[in-house]
Amino acid sequence: MKHKIISSGEQAVFEAGIKLGALYHQFTGAPISPASVDSMEKAIEESIALQPYVIDITVKIDRDIINARLNEFGYCEIEGRMLDVTLVTQVGCSTATVSLSYDSKLEYPLMKILQIDEN
Amino acid sequence: MKHKIISSGEQAVFEAGIKLGALYHQFTGAPISPASVDSMEKAIEESIALQPYVIDITVKIDRDIINARLNEFGYCEIEGRMLDVTLVTQVGCSTATVSLSYDSKLEYPLMKILQIDEN
Amino acid sequence: MKHKIISSGEQAVFEAGIKLGALYHQFTGAPISPASVDSMEKAIEESIALQPYVIDITVKIDRDIINARLNEFGYCEIEGRMLDVTLVTQVGCSTATVSLSYDSKLEYPLMKILQIDEN
Amino acid sequence: MKHKIISSGEQAVFEAGIKLGALYHQFTGAPISPASVDSMEKAIEESIALQPYVIDITVKIDRDIINARLNEFGYCEIEGRMLDVTLVTQVGCSTATVSLSYDSKLEYPLMKILQIDEN
Repeated sequence: MKHKIISSGEQAVFEAGIKLGALYHQFTGAPISPASVDSMEKAIEESIALQPYVIDITVKIDRDIINARLNEFGYCEIEGRMLDVTLVTQVGCSTATVSLSYDSKLEYPLMKILQIDEN
Repeated sequence: MKHKIISSGEQAVFEAGIKLGALYHQFTGAPISPASVDSMEKAIEESIALQPYVIDITVKIDRDIINARLNEFGYCEIEGRMLDVTLVTQVGCSTATVSLSYDSKLEYPLMKILQIDEN
Repeated sequence: MKHKIISSGEQAVFEAGIKLGALYHQFTGAPISPASVDSMEKAIEESIALQPYVIDITVKIDRDIINARLNEFGYCEIEGRMLDVTLVTQVGCSTATVSLSYDSKLEYPLMKILQIDEN
Repeated sequence: MKHKIISSGEQAVFEAGIKLGALYHQFTGAPISPASVDSMEKAIEESIALQPYVIDITVKIDRDIINARLNEFGYCEIEGRMLDVTLVTQVGCSTATVSLSYDSKLEYPLMKILQIDEN
């Protein structure tokens, strides 16, 4: 086993992972409806963008799934499968681009590394 | 011990309690800063307003406490003591008005019944 | 409209509502499996029991629903529909007994007042 | 800018970041006291251990901070600064060891990569 020196790319992708995990577990469960989805998307983006090393974030919550899940009272809860997130972190000269989106094969809200760049 | 029939006022104030507990434990911990506080207030109001029996809600997050708590990275987390919430529920002919605000004597974010009305 | 004086029964049921809302929005979303359900039930009970005025609480998480929801990785997340909670609060001489359980007709995790007693 | 192929070490450390972010935002805010800390530590460990690629996890919640923060009602809430977590993920032949612990200089609950190993 050899212990590696930690690169800025690894730092960037670690930070990106933290943010996806944070976003997911902070905001799933919140009541949502077609009428409130815009304000929630904006609040999540502006909240997670505050965390260290985040340089870009886009949050989309799937309107079709919201509409399909509405309960008797006209709302539902944010679930992982509704979330479509792209997030970029930068540490030193490295950037990591990651995403959260529903993988219909795995039936799982999958977090993925899209790319790691060194500038 | 006598078992009481449950009144609409009791129903209304029970529902109001649920919403305050939900709001608190859903949204505390979310990253916040002076730049993001407006969108977060709006999202919380629009989210909790969706829950059954809520007819009015106002959410204020204390800017002074946010500014006092900013960390090295320029943000902090929503804490109970920052929240000033007034919420009204209606069940049948009864309304319950409740609040969450910081009690500086108890050093505790206190949830209180303000009034219960029968119309 | 007449403003009512707030009774200890109303206080008790308000406090009970707060605890159900808190429990729901604090713990839904947490990873769970048949192997971890015992420790989670115990932790939720002991956590929510700490809140003011709670004198009794029982938390059950439905093993059948957990087993039906297991993903590729062998776990799922706590959802409202899995929760079966009974909780008693006491304020002054009044106690409120409330519950959270899945209402299959409404397809909704319903919070209900079971009874309010004056001693 | 050159696009790198993503290594198993980067995957492992990304997954480790996800888990720390998830743990933090799932469980902070939960009521805690000296009497309930054992069950909460166990539940958090067993819950987060379920997530993909986690091969080891230790969660400690600081008793001294809990005791210093107890409110009028004899409890407090889990805060980031109380958490001392070490977590290991494995992807392919790589393992990532990461931690969450309070950095008293930064006054921040810091998530850090301790090491990345290739076997």
